[in-house]
Amino acid sequence: MFITEALRRILVEELSPGAVLADPAHLEEYYSDASGLEFAPELVVRAQNTKDVQTLIKLANTHGFPVIPRGGGSGLAGACLAHLGGVVLSLQDLNRIRLIDRDNFLMEVEAGVISQKVRDAAWEAGMFYPPDPAGMDLSTIGGNAATDAGGPACVKYGTTRDYILGLEAVLPSGDCVRTGVRTRKGVVGYDLTNLLVGSEGTLGVITALVLKLLPRPAAVQTLLCAFPSVTSAMENVAAIMRAGHLPCAIEVLDHRCLGLVGEMLPFPLPAGKPSLLILELDGPAIPIAEEMEAINKLVLANGAIATLPATDQKRRQRIWEVRRQVSLRIHDYAALYLSEDVTVPISAIARLVNALPEYEERYQLEIFAFGHAGDGNIHLNITTQDRALEELAHEGVRALLALVLELGGTISGEHGIGLAKKPYISMELPEEMLALQRSIKDLFDPNQILNPGKIFP
Amino acid sequence: MFITEALRRILVEELSPGAVLADPAHLEEYYSDASGLEFAPELVVRAQNTKDVQTLIKLANTHGFPVIPRGGGSGLAGACLAHLGGVVLSLQDLNRIRLIDRDNFLMEVEAGVISQKVRDAAWEAGMFYPPDPAGMDLSTIGGNAATDAGGPACVKYGTTRDYILGLEAVLPSGDCVRTGVRTRKGVVGYDLTNLLVGSEGTLGVITALVLKLLPRPAAVQTLLCAFPSVTSAMENVAAIMRAGHLPCAIEVLDHRCLGLVGEMLPFPLPAGKPSLLILELDGPAIPIAEEMEAINKLVLANGAIATLPATDQKRRQRIWEVRRQVSLRIHDYAALYLSEDVTVPISAIARLVNALPEYEERYQLEIFAFGHAGDGNIHLNITTQDRALEELAHEGVRALLALVLELGGTISGEHGIGLAKKPYISMELPEEMLALQRSIKDLFDPNQILNPGKIFP
Repeated sequence: MFITEALRRILVEELSPGAVLADPAHLEEYYSDASGLEFAPELVVRAQNTKDVQTLIKLANTHGFPVIPRGGGSGLAGACLAHLGGVVLSLQDLNRIRLIDRDNFLMEVEAGVISQKVRDAAWEAGMFYPPDPAGMDLSTIGGNAATDAGGPACVKYGTTRDYILGLEAVLPSGDCVRTGVRTRKGVVGYDLTNLLVGSEGTLGVITALVLKLLPRPAAVQTLLCAFPSVTSAMENVAAIMRAGHLPCAIEVLDHRCLGLVGEMLPFPLPAGKPSLLILELDGPAIPIAEEMEAINKLVLANGAIATLPATDQKRRQRIWEVRRQVSLRIHDYAALYLSEDVTVPISAIARLVNALPEYEERYQLEIFAFGHAGDGNIHLNITTQDRALEELAHEGVRALLALVLELGGTISGEHGIGLAKKPYISMELPEEMLALQRSIKDLFDPNQILNPGKIFP
Repeated sequence: MFITEALRRILVEELSPGAVLADPAHLEEYYSDASGLEFAPELVVRAQNTKDVQTLIKLANTHGFPVIPRGGGSGLAGACLAHLGGVVLSLQDLNRIRLIDRDNFLMEVEAGVISQKVRDAAWEAGMFYPPDPAGMDLSTIGGNAATDAGGPACVKYGTTRDYILGLEAVLPSGDCVRTGVRTRKGVVGYDLTNLLVGSEGTLGVITALVLKLLPRPAAVQTLLCAFPSVTSAMENVAAIMRAGHLPCAIEVLDHRCLGLVGEMLPFPLPAGKPSLLILELDGPAIPIAEEMEAINKLVLANGAIATLPATDQKRRQRIWEVRRQVSLRIHDYAALYLSEDVTVPISAIARLVNALPEYEERYQLEIFAFGHAGDGNIHLNITTQDRALEELAHEGVRALLALVLELGGTISGEHGIGLAKKPYISMELPEEMLALQRSIKDLFDPNQILNPGKIFP
């Protein structure tokens, strides 16, 4: 226990009225995130302004307690959980949109703004914020930045980091700094913006962000395509991209996923191990209509069993609902569920998915694979109906991650390391790289008060 | 003097045959870059492989001499010059393209490959490497990474950093590390790739890069437009982008620039202070033709005096030759020439350019403004015919940089700090930010052997 009654009183006194939550009933919603892990914080501080963040962090240095920054709590790696005790610092009340700048295609937003609201506000102002991580109706933009959240649009538009021009952040020293620029370019000094982005709240607390926006694409079209196998589906992804198309989403579902949502599909699927692609194009209306027709022809000539183009919003939503339901139904389906978000070279996706039955058998698992075929980020949803087999399931995860690395991939494409993947990070990063990264952590946070014990084993 | 005869002999012995150049006649080409600054290195090492880089850096730590990494020597900030003496480390012989991967849209190249060759090799393999910094026929891809080089395409495609998935780099410790991934996504640990990119060879020597490529755009079209004033030109840039267009280049030339290339223009220009835009669209052929027509109509309805569309390669080259000649002729024109690459919010470009006459008068200068209107990166070419006025010219630069910062801009959009802009960096970065960045430098390079004395005052 870090937070004594005396310390609690100091916090209440120094921070904004109402910022300190100590009543256990209020703390419960801060116990967990989407990783399934649970840890009770000793106290929660809901910062009301940047000053609160600074004050809390300075007190943490003085009194030596952990501060764990938290956005919407929708992360999948446990990065925002108080596994060592201490204070969870919620950014959710820093939720002002400070600026929408139509002339310079940028926005300045506080870290606690819900990501979907950022996207909506940009759209309403005639602009486009492309990142679309799953759960963006729950996640905050600061949390997206802290984990460099991805999403289906990454294949065309990149990840959250690609839309951050600059940050306002409170460092573990308590200093509030501004990194980066408010322009499209800037090469003055080291790139601390990108160092903070993806550091999962271990190097600084992001309090506000300057975001780069794009012109709004005029139209969007979706195409659902079924293939007799995942190999055939992935051959088509390669063929589509080789033909020069750059869809804004290329999602793949394997046969196990299809088994869960069969009744939602607009066409019957053959026996065996069929696979589904959801392709989306955005841009000017007429050209993307033509492009979609070309893609439709290409896949039909190249092994697709059936396709369903969706040009209107309603049909598009129906297609995406299939994708969403897969996630939900896997959760409901399994007693134990481990979510891995490995990324492999696109050309290795079929090999990865085709190798799954071997691992399923060896580790007594059912593995549902779906995800972002366009960028190689495949979500392996590893399940078992027998909680007693948890140990074996973790062994299976380790074996699968080894395969992913062998294929030239990475163990996490968008979820991050946090707590959930900490046991595996040294499979990917050699000891000297971990030591270098730890030394950066020590430089920023010599007292180890900011999100200690995360990322590094 | 750091390099004694004994030390030279050790270097010759430990490094690849022929790697050490000591003959003054061979050293001359390493005295300068495009900044106009000149410093003689004591020795040049042309690394023949990554091992040579490691060996040299380890020896530098043992014997305490500066190592200054150098690519093509086309930088504008003096970052590759041996202003404290020591050894210039040329990467130009590390020039293999290690891999062109058509299935995964990536390349692995050594740092010394000429940037244009990277672009050409990608194109020949049916892919597209978008960054197009000026002088890419001279610069190396490693140098582009070390400075995060920009170029006209940045408005649509971003800068060099946006195409780097991972690096092989030798750290100031002599350790060779790999950062990043070979996939489109990866969030395992801190982003050291982006920390090394833009660090101007002060945190590590980049020896190889994994580059992200795109599908090849099918067509490209160019439009030259003349406006009665830079204000009118910039209003049109804003209108074009507000209408949802995203050109792959929007270059602006002010009236002084036009004065240098008047005879090359395809139409007469009015008296006063006219301004020129060069707009380029790339993408599928028919849609961009339609888009270009829409833009042409838009600017003609919005104040353009004359426009000239260029759909074929020959006409396009003629338009771009105007832009290239401006740079060359400014060099020839002036006795003293200072090149600043400030970046301001797009909406502030007209204000910046319109303020120049006041600074010209106050500091006895002629200032030629051209550059990347689409991303706010305006090259201020500050000249005087009287070398005796150099001191006053530098005062003028300082005053202009202050204006740029006042407008919400940055003092360097793509050239970097190096030596040339070191006196000004503290105008932009507060002391605590400089101290933090210096502490990162000290962490990576405790003996200050790698490009010491650059960036930080």
